[in-house]
Amino acid sequence: MSFSWTNPIPIAYKKLLQMEHPEQLLPGFSMHYRGRLNAPKGKSDAEKDDLPEFEPFKGAVPRGPQDYNSLTLMKLDLHKNENTMAHRTNSFKHDNLIIRRGQKFIMTLTFNRTYNLNTDTAMLEFVMGKNSLSGKATYVIVLLGPKCPISDQTCKWVVEVKMTGDTMTVGITPSADCIVGQYHIFLTVLVNPSGKKRTDLNTDIYVLFNAWCPEDEVFLSDENQRKEYVLNDQGIIFNGETDNVASRPWNFGQYKPGVLDACFYVLNKSGILLDDRKSVILVTRRTSAMVNALDDNGVLVGNWSGVYTMGTSPSAWTGSAEILLQYSNSGTPVSYAQCWVYAGVLNTILRCLGVPCRVVTNYNSSHDSNGNLTIDIFVDEDGTMNRTHTNDSMWNYHCWNEAYMRRPDMTLDSKYWGWQVVDATPQETSNGFYQCGPTSVKAIKEGDLCYPYDARFVFAEVNSDVVFKMVDRNGQWTTVQKNTTYVGKKILTKAVGSNVAESIMNNYKYEEGSPSDVAVMERATSFGCARDRSLHQETDVDIELMAPSVQLGQHFYLTLGIKNKSLEQRTVQLTVTCSVIYYTGVNFSSFKEERKTVSLGPSMTKNLIIEILANEYMDHMVDQGSLKFICVGKVQENNQVLAAGQVVRMEVPILSLKLDGEVRVGHEMSVTVEFTNIFNMVLEHVHLRMEGPGEMGFKKKYYEYIAPGASLTWTESFVPERPGEGTVVGSLDCPKLRQVYGKLEFYSQP
Amino acid sequence: MSFSWTNPIPIAYKKLLQMEHPEQLLPGFSMHYRGRLNAPKGKSDAEKDDLPEFEPFKGAVPRGPQDYNSLTLMKLDLHKNENTMAHRTNSFKHDNLIIRRGQKFIMTLTFNRTYNLNTDTAMLEFVMGKNSLSGKATYVIVLLGPKCPISDQTCKWVVEVKMTGDTMTVGITPSADCIVGQYHIFLTVLVNPSGKKRTDLNTDIYVLFNAWCPEDEVFLSDENQRKEYVLNDQGIIFNGETDNVASRPWNFGQYKPGVLDACFYVLNKSGILLDDRKSVILVTRRTSAMVNALDDNGVLVGNWSGVYTMGTSPSAWTGSAEILLQYSNSGTPVSYAQCWVYAGVLNTILRCLGVPCRVVTNYNSSHDSNGNLTIDIFVDEDGTMNRTHTNDSMWNYHCWNEAYMRRPDMTLDSKYWGWQVVDATPQETSNGFYQCGPTSVKAIKEGDLCYPYDARFVFAEVNSDVVFKMVDRNGQWTTVQKNTTYVGKKILTKAVGSNVAESIMNNYKYEEGSPSDVAVMERATSFGCARDRSLHQETDVDIELMAPSVQLGQHFYLTLGIKNKSLEQRTVQLTVTCSVIYYTGVNFSSFKEERKTVSLGPSMTKNLIIEILANEYMDHMVDQGSLKFICVGKVQENNQVLAAGQVVRMEVPILSLKLDGEVRVGHEMSVTVEFTNIFNMVLEHVHLRMEGPGEMGFKKKYYEYIAPGASLTWTESFVPERPGEGTVVGSLDCPKLRQVYGKLEFYSQP
Repeated sequence: MSFSWTNPIPIAYKKLLQMEHPEQLLPGFSMHYRGRLNAPKGKSDAEKDDLPEFEPFKGAVPRGPQDYNSLTLMKLDLHKNENTMAHRTNSFKHDNLIIRRGQKFIMTLTFNRTYNLNTDTAMLEFVMGKNSLSGKATYVIVLLGPKCPISDQTCKWVVEVKMTGDTMTVGITPSADCIVGQYHIFLTVLVNPSGKKRTDLNTDIYVLFNAWCPEDEVFLSDENQRKEYVLNDQGIIFNGETDNVASRPWNFGQYKPGVLDACFYVLNKSGILLDDRKSVILVTRRTSAMVNALDDNGVLVGNWSGVYTMGTSPSAWTGSAEILLQYSNSGTPVSYAQCWVYAGVLNTILRCLGVPCRVVTNYNSSHDSNGNLTIDIFVDEDGTMNRTHTNDSMWNYHCWNEAYMRRPDMTLDSKYWGWQVVDATPQETSNGFYQCGPTSVKAIKEGDLCYPYDARFVFAEVNSDVVFKMVDRNGQWTTVQKNTTYVGKKILTKAVGSNVAESIMNNYKYEEGSPSDVAVMERATSFGCARDRSLHQETDVDIELMAPSVQLGQHFYLTLGIKNKSLEQRTVQLTVTCSVIYYTGVNFSSFKEERKTVSLGPSMTKNLIIEILANEYMDHMVDQGSLKFICVGKVQENNQVLAAGQVVRMEVPILSLKLDGEVRVGHEMSVTVEFTNIFNMVLEHVHLRMEGPGEMGFKKKYYEYIAPGASLTWTESFVPERPGEGTVVGSLDCPKLRQVYGKLEFYSQP
Repeated sequence: MSFSWTNPIPIAYKKLLQMEHPEQLLPGFSMHYRGRLNAPKGKSDAEKDDLPEFEPFKGAVPRGPQDYNSLTLMKLDLHKNENTMAHRTNSFKHDNLIIRRGQKFIMTLTFNRTYNLNTDTAMLEFVMGKNSLSGKATYVIVLLGPKCPISDQTCKWVVEVKMTGDTMTVGITPSADCIVGQYHIFLTVLVNPSGKKRTDLNTDIYVLFNAWCPEDEVFLSDENQRKEYVLNDQGIIFNGETDNVASRPWNFGQYKPGVLDACFYVLNKSGILLDDRKSVILVTRRTSAMVNALDDNGVLVGNWSGVYTMGTSPSAWTGSAEILLQYSNSGTPVSYAQCWVYAGVLNTILRCLGVPCRVVTNYNSSHDSNGNLTIDIFVDEDGTMNRTHTNDSMWNYHCWNEAYMRRPDMTLDSKYWGWQVVDATPQETSNGFYQCGPTSVKAIKEGDLCYPYDARFVFAEVNSDVVFKMVDRNGQWTTVQKNTTYVGKKILTKAVGSNVAESIMNNYKYEEGSPSDVAVMERATSFGCARDRSLHQETDVDIELMAPSVQLGQHFYLTLGIKNKSLEQRTVQLTVTCSVIYYTGVNFSSFKEERKTVSLGPSMTKNLIIEILANEYMDHMVDQGSLKFICVGKVQENNQVLAAGQVVRMEVPILSLKLDGEVRVGHEMSVTVEFTNIFNMVLEHVHLRMEGPGEMGFKKKYYEYIAPGASLTWTESFVPERPGEGTVVGSLDCPKLRQVYGKLEFYSQP
């Protein structure tokens, strides 16, 4: 079928060896594609096109440039300060000029002589990647001078030219839909009659999305929101549990040295076409795939096992910068992440690129549901949870991102423009690939799940019903209880300009049970989301589980309320199962089971108190220390089945950070971390971190061992490099105790 | 940051070592996911769940089964013949029972004693993959007996039971939305009071999609269409060029031994969740990704280079079966494919699974356009084509598939149900992954591009404008001509029940220029497809290129018609560039350039004749031998620019197949191939193939060398195994001459 190479090589192959595009043999463009494309499409703005220094006109005999009286560039001024101030990119500490598209920037060119607008023709070429000429918008020409003809280039950049003597001041406005990334700049002068003389200006400009530009698809009208969602490099990520919301500081750190380049590195590694980088829709979708390591060697390796010895524990990170820098330096995925780490890093990348973006937290988030609207919890006839059947997982909380953009691809009108869900945490289901979104929050609210991307999945995360099912001996099951309000109980994000939580629940849902809500659920199911339609009998006894807020390591009391709504005697057999769960809702191990029989007179209410001792659960704790209690009961008189569930999050101690001395730009400030092991267990392998804003660095410390009752103090010094408010974030992490954070807000004098 | 394993292993890890789900450590379910999911989700129906032979009831003391008087299965009859006849799966030569969902099949169970409907409880368990219990529809129970309670299982299978003495006849109707794949069957008997006794019936049934079942999402009402699009294992794929349509036979071969299993193997390798395999939408999407090798080690490696020495030339294949078998045996991608091979194999897989599917050919198919509606052809001022700028490619033809299904995910009504485009040929753009579709043909026609999946891309393939642009010395360009009718000129598929071409153009487009057509284009652009809006001046001279149909190896005459529409004298400078192109429209090399100056009086028409000699192009021919002629002209009097293009396909000789003797099932028939090298060049490395239908095998032959004028005859014998019509397909392939086919239709007596 195939023959060996000893045979004479066929003529076509000989041709191939003299091909014009040898780069077609480079990785990413296999030889097999030769007949498929004229030239490989650009996928990296880091690669450079080597345009010739002299390009003879066709027909003209190339005698080399006639330099007599020809125009030469003496001096170039990019006006970095004015431009970056005007473009709000001055916080980036970067050698290159960073601007935003759709907005004018200026540069000054000084020539060897006066530029004659009538006889001279010079142009600036903005070039991105390899084979830039064959790309749709990777090669932009800007003609200098008034006689610039109207050209129908795919991507128009507006030019203004002002001559004063030998200096020309050029104002250039990149089109509001140009490619986001690095452009290399050439100055090209026409040397008649022979050809073009090209001067490499040896500089790249970085062009970002522009939330300040009304024509840009990421335009956001409110200045405070733009400051928060694009410019703010510090944030708060909410976690914990619905009835006990906690929060952690997160340092997005987009201004730290190297982070912007790391973000472009991620884009280049993602293989998204340069031509596609004008579209915020495609950029956010690809980034959501790249932030997780799966199927594309992306940024972060997920780990939910509780064992992080081969990397950094997800809860140990204090911000995104360290992760992105480690990734761009090593080129290999960073260990480890859970949802808030994915969300924090994606937020940094998108804010870096200029896309308004925020981290949101959904409480009781339904997962792995294949876009179906039911979470099944199976219980056996004896009231214990059936763990083989129960596989739908519900997370105490789940973090994802919202990015702000237009969605012309969805509807003709703008009704679904605005915030879009993008989720970088790898799910089991998204067309077989680990990416999710962007999907319009407004469309989720309306149950319009027919639009790209992954709308059904996100809808299920906030709208599923929790259904308790009892399995009989034949393996048949019947629904005993249904809870339609448990999932998506709260949806929070950091408020604009402050650290408090803002509820954005109303963006995602109508009020539970309201006519619109009912209509939306119907609509969603008609788009193919399977929903549990089974009915369950109304019971005449109610049960409820109540727990106080609990300090990790303390014993506490769980209250089980039983209410007989009937007018007859009722006897109830109850089973309470106590388990330790991951924040993903997955059961780690059950440590206690209580069986009680209670009899109640007509309309009587009783409270059962169950004591939970510290040593019953401490040995089993994982990660973010949550306990789950499930109570199932049976009414003897009528065989009615009762069910109730409650998750209790254990509060962990806070890390205290103290400031010594005054804070002034350029001067050392010293921060002290204090922590006491209040538990009667040894804390082993303790990792401590501190991170400051902007260019302030990361500090780490490792303790083998902290004895019960022992305290530690650790002092580090930082040098603030910009005036105004700032935050130092600290974390403590060890296998037995995670999610310990603290932060210190300071104001540094100029 | 991480410490070594010599340190004491943390307690959580010790726990991990005693985990209940050791399979979580198997590939595909990393240890890191332990906290993320209760159990890994099933992704293969080839794996088997080992359910216990005896399952004690909770609480009951397991003393082992009390066998006294317990029910035992003596005999099982699956009625393979009746069932497969009724389900139209009898053409599959397979040991297992193959049925279609939503349709009743019967089985007979003979017990050791009479089954007492009141006291005995037995059930059939249909189990798919591992951890079947935790899947939504991978574990189906069918209770035998009238007292079967109404269970709200996710997936309901209807049962009828009839007892006659010790034998029970069971009629089972799998739900019309059940998972497509292999189910393993257990018979389970309740042994009171202790538990369940399970008997492995040691057989799997294969369940397919059912185009005959009105409840199935692939339901197709017309019987002739079902026969063609689901059952027919032989087809025709159209290729060639708009003005010169050619066709080639293709053997889908879904009934060949091993092919059905190979298709399931592809699904399992794709990693699509078992739970997702009920949805034809997700199945077709994943399959489109799997048929090309890129980013998932799928079935076929693409190669357009003209060099196929390391594998099989795309044009050498005679059908899908050989490819699928090679893939499932080796587990590694098969070399090589171009669009019709991808389409042929995808067609086989989908028909095998029961999805109505057909191969369609789009002539002048726009590609790599990022879903934009413009194909730019750049010419320099001197009229020659600018190959650096011209990177949009337009294929002479492109093959993809249409699959017939409902799309509840798109709209609430059924307006976009029906044929859906699925394309397995790897494109440069589809969310960064190599998959395309399903996308509704009706939505394409209406320009409703907001629905999943990849609608914009397909719309561009059939609707783009061809725009000639002239680049001036400054690099600025202006549009000189625009052709809105060239792309998507013809769309053909094999007609139902015959081998003729059926035009399905009207399914994709309204009549060019009609009001609806204009409206649709507007709508499409409003969904974000960029379209060239530039105007070009009306010229007062028309040029047109005309060529006859040409035999490869012959010289011929190209006619250039020039028409002066003005009432004045016109002088036109013309440049005709002649190039060899791939069928992808990519320029391989230009072999001739003619410059002429013509003057025409008022309203005068002239014809220029250009002779093309065989030896001018023969050395340059690649693959499917197409020549492209581009003519650009300039009118001296008014500098108007004229442009015209024409593609000419060279006709290759046909392989003649002859039949000797009568054809009768079970008897040898012999087929003779005859071929003569009519060219005055040596044909080297010649591969010949023959393939028969059904179980008739593949035959191959290799000739080092065929001298000019030399003839070959090759005789092989086949044994037809089913009565009725059949086809033997033959192909000849060598580097200098490809796409040589022949076929022989026969009728075999019973």
